[in-house]
Amino acid sequence: MTRLEFFFEFASTYSYPAAMRIEALATQYEVDVTWTPFLLGPLFHEQQGLRDSPFNVVPEKGRYMWRDMERICATEELPFRRPKTFPQNGLLAARFAVSLLQRERSTFAKAVYRANFADGLDISDVAVLAELADLSIEDVTTRSEDSDTKQKLRENTERAKAYGIFGAPSFVTADQELFWGNDRIEQALAWACSAAERKTELA
Amino acid sequence: MTRLEFFFEFASTYSYPAAMRIEALATQYEVDVTWTPFLLGPLFHEQQGLRDSPFNVVPEKGRYMWRDMERICATEELPFRRPKTFPQNGLLAARFAVSLLQRERSTFAKAVYRANFADGLDISDVAVLAELADLSIEDVTTRSEDSDTKQKLRENTERAKAYGIFGAPSFVTADQELFWGNDRIEQALAWACSAAERKTELA
Repeated sequence: MTRLEFFFEFASTYSYPAAMRIEALATQYEVDVTWTPFLLGPLFHEQQGLRDSPFNVVPEKGRYMWRDMERICATEELPFRRPKTFPQNGLLAARFAVSLLQRERSTFAKAVYRANFADGLDISDVAVLAELADLSIEDVTTRSEDSDTKQKLRENTERAKAYGIFGAPSFVTADQELFWGNDRIEQALAWACSAAERKTELA
Repeated sequence: MTRLEFFFEFASTYSYPAAMRIEALATQYEVDVTWTPFLLGPLFHEQQGLRDSPFNVVPEKGRYMWRDMERICATEELPFRRPKTFPQNGLLAARFAVSLLQRERSTFAKAVYRANFADGLDISDVAVLAELADLSIEDVTTRSEDSDTKQKLRENTERAKAYGIFGAPSFVTADQELFWGNDRIEQALAWACSAAERKTELA
């Protein structure tokens, strides 16, 4: 089965509907999805000199995005409530997600997105994450502070940068084609399938 | 028939496939499209402090956009060649477009987009525009320099700003719902139709 890598950031609004949509679509397209948490903040800073979300820096973009999120979530029948704090700090959640196996990781990631964009919870709070993961605070802390875990998250962000990623969600096919945005999942999956077909034909 | 206003900027890459796609889609959705040229430069400057396209200012965004344009144009079977100069100065073309009636305007606009993004022509050159419009250089100059025309273009840009527009192409429905991007034409048209239905039900 061909693969698609799904780069997501827990603070990212459009990553929420993407996380909720991608599994059913991947089954339909018969593509194996790898969930890769990364940090967008360092890339925003390095590439654009930003120290805040572009949706806060440019109010016109922010107003559009929040309205767009309402429309998308209504269409997808996803609960949505604009969080009081935006962007939330997703560092701890991202580290903990890295420590999980793929299947657990997607389940945890979806729970974090719901907490952030539907339930108004503080996703930087270790107690909230422990509750979502059904683990003790100690377990979440230990796993998140593991130096291998921290290193893996840094590597994910470096890999995102190397692929030319500048926003989330982003999708990278096996032949390294980059797609950006929740509204490009279908196109990314279709590309992954046709790239796999081309490879089979060449073999 | 319900209306959709199509805000386009001649320098804007994604406005090219939008201009080429919107008429057939509008016929399908039974929506009447108003073509409104405006200038994005003043809005980029005012809203984001930019004096150049964000695709030049942030190279990662530029690399992605050019690749994305190749993919979109391949899918839509539109000729595409990355122009040597980007963004081109679309002021003269926008002024002349404002001086035209809607039917003539869409024909002229599509010709300018082809010139810019397929044929490698200089769309700031009055001789190029005259050729595209099948008029004399004098006619194009006279119409473009008319003070009413200039004022109408300024008003279009002011109206774009008032709607919260920050990029092109953008689409505004009769009930002032804003959609941004070539990939949102279908959604904008569907919204225009359902808004018209709601209005009929309320009447």
